[in-house]
Amino acid sequence: MRVLLVGAGGVGTAVTRIAARREFLTHMIVADYDLSRAEASVAALGERGARFGARRVDASDCDAVRRILLEERCDVLLNATDPRYVMPLFTAALEAGAHYLDMAMSLSAPHVARPYEECGVKLGDEQFALARRWEDAGRLALVGMGVEPGLSDVFARYAADELFDDIEEIGVRDGANLTVEGYGFAPSFSIWTTIEECLNPPVVYERDRGWFTTAPFSEPEVFDFPEGIGPVECVNVEHEEVLLIPRWVDARRVTFKYGLGDDFIAKLKTLHELGLDATTRVTVPGDDGPVRVSPRDVVAACLPDPAGLGERMTGKTCAGTWVKGTKDGSPREVYLYHVVDNQWSMREYGSQAVLWQTAVNPVVALELLSTGDWSGKGVLGPEALPPRPFLDLLTAYGSPWGMREEN
Amino acid sequence: MRVLLVGAGGVGTAVTRIAARREFLTHMIVADYDLSRAEASVAALGERGARFGARRVDASDCDAVRRILLEERCDVLLNATDPRYVMPLFTAALEAGAHYLDMAMSLSAPHVARPYEECGVKLGDEQFALARRWEDAGRLALVGMGVEPGLSDVFARYAADELFDDIEEIGVRDGANLTVEGYGFAPSFSIWTTIEECLNPPVVYERDRGWFTTAPFSEPEVFDFPEGIGPVECVNVEHEEVLLIPRWVDARRVTFKYGLGDDFIAKLKTLHELGLDATTRVTVPGDDGPVRVSPRDVVAACLPDPAGLGERMTGKTCAGTWVKGTKDGSPREVYLYHVVDNQWSMREYGSQAVLWQTAVNPVVALELLSTGDWSGKGVLGPEALPPRPFLDLLTAYGSPWGMREEN
Repeated sequence: MRVLLVGAGGVGTAVTRIAARREFLTHMIVADYDLSRAEASVAALGERGARFGARRVDASDCDAVRRILLEERCDVLLNATDPRYVMPLFTAALEAGAHYLDMAMSLSAPHVARPYEECGVKLGDEQFALARRWEDAGRLALVGMGVEPGLSDVFARYAADELFDDIEEIGVRDGANLTVEGYGFAPSFSIWTTIEECLNPPVVYERDRGWFTTAPFSEPEVFDFPEGIGPVECVNVEHEEVLLIPRWVDARRVTFKYGLGDDFIAKLKTLHELGLDATTRVTVPGDDGPVRVSPRDVVAACLPDPAGLGERMTGKTCAGTWVKGTKDGSPREVYLYHVVDNQWSMREYGSQAVLWQTAVNPVVALELLSTGDWSGKGVLGPEALPPRPFLDLLTAYGSPWGMREEN
Repeated sequence: MRVLLVGAGGVGTAVTRIAARREFLTHMIVADYDLSRAEASVAALGERGARFGARRVDASDCDAVRRILLEERCDVLLNATDPRYVMPLFTAALEAGAHYLDMAMSLSAPHVARPYEECGVKLGDEQFALARRWEDAGRLALVGMGVEPGLSDVFARYAADELFDDIEEIGVRDGANLTVEGYGFAPSFSIWTTIEECLNPPVVYERDRGWFTTAPFSEPEVFDFPEGIGPVECVNVEHEEVLLIPRWVDARRVTFKYGLGDDFIAKLKTLHELGLDATTRVTVPGDDGPVRVSPRDVVAACLPDPAGLGERMTGKTCAGTWVKGTKDGSPREVYLYHVVDNQWSMREYGSQAVLWQTAVNPVVALELLSTGDWSGKGVLGPEALPPRPFLDLLTAYGSPWGMREEN
């Protein structure tokens, strides 16, 4: 399998480190806007880097990406950029006749009149609008194939297939006890994406009502995370699982709640009140006169690079799917989860836990596609495909998942 | 008197509107980096604008400012820019043989090893270092001549001259009950300057100890402001009065506390924790590739222009000086203050209250210099000059001050 990996940031670099240890990969081109970053990620692989190459690419330039896919004869494009670049990369893969994987879906736009009650453009809408063209081309766009969305969707399908007869609610719950020494505030994941998902109106699915939105940070609940992480306050956040799961899994309600914590929520609210979450450019003095910049890019530039925090970070991160329903006539409640200890991921891969956990899942998916255990065409979410092969291969990668019976 | 006013922002524009009504002014050149802004401030004066002209100038370009002072045969430079430009403008005036007034002094730099205990470079240190040259030239640099510093310093001198035999403490206290309709967060004064003064280590003066610093937002107290504003929580903030008053007025302790309120303090702390208060440039994407911008400039660009908020603003702002000591052997405590109602300043001058209150004081000072009621040479604070003529002329401008006996 020949793969074009676009994005050599924290997740992309972790992808190379995981993929380098697997046999299924014939060649991987690592492409980034900053060529030196792509080259550094390949150089860091040492002897294992023989199957890798680096190129410069602007992810917003659909034509340039298509040309690289064709020149390098890639079977698949793995998108490890931030969600702004989903549509050009998704389109480039379609035009080049390649398969496509991403870990976040095309962006939403709030409902103009009732943003906190009704959906406007939903996450992934732009991608699903092109589903027919992918089907006709006989190619697969596997969307939302990171950890959340991704593994969390696989868990949902696994619960529906093997653990429940009837599902009342599926709630993805994400929490961590990570701390970074020496920083008052150091998000463990791309702040650009975190702002996007936390400040957009959260989306909820109910079978009787369809998709709808709420005010940001709604329905707070304390969720008890496993493996020593413990209770964390979680709130509704806009996330792909809520859009993906109901398309393939039957449940009366689907939610996503993120364990942000009070301090993080307060900071995000302040960024919003000050207009610093905006992506619309403002004019400010530059070195040679006025320049136009996006405030959110400036926020990101002021914070430490999440990929560089691994050495100072301690703790574990947990992604998982809580499911409530009935089995054999009895009520049942389970939490299916995947925990990564930062100490382990740093020792084994030199990658920070949150980034490593995001990166491992698309590599598992690529391997399943290369072996034929997974196959399909059109625009599919991870829950459209059989969950067992995925969960078994993830365990074989040395990173097992777990299940907790809630009663 | 011929005046070069540098800066046609909120304060500068209010200066033109106040000065246009006074006879003492022969000519005022309004100079700004943005010529259209300078021209607009002159055009807004209508028939009263005959004595005014507009020019473009870069306030950081000392030579260019000096040339304008000479070409326009100005007697005095009035600096209405933000404190970054104090030193080039102060130097240009000295070299051109003009007098100089500003409303904020040259910037401080924290003590490298003990920033929250000892002073590093203090506010105004760079200006006072050149005092001898001003004396030798027979010219006056009247520094800190806005409302705070400025009128607050005049109050301190008035208290020492007429109200007390012995002063234990002088505490400048600033508070307001201004609200801006339609904005969750809309500072009524330059956010650049507000960040500078609030996030630098606050400075305190004690006779036995000299100047020293504390942690930001230290020594919170609730101060009851007059004329219906009521109690506001105030905290220590770095401000020029603490550096100026002890040079000419004998007091055991001098402080400055700002009625910021909890919400504003929390926002400033968040800006600091996220590094968004920084003035060191960061690299972000621009329209044509990477550009370097100052995060603090971006924060300012995201917020509404304080000068444009007057129409939506209601409430009053109070600047004043609380003095505690003894008179004729008895304890005495007074608060000398100046309140501006936004409704009044908008109706009378079309200027927002906080900006108008800052602007009126240097115009009063210019008039006293033109009449000879005030005169001097060297680098002086407002408390170095007789307070009575100033307070009487301020009242004659239609904006009387007040005094409250605290016991």
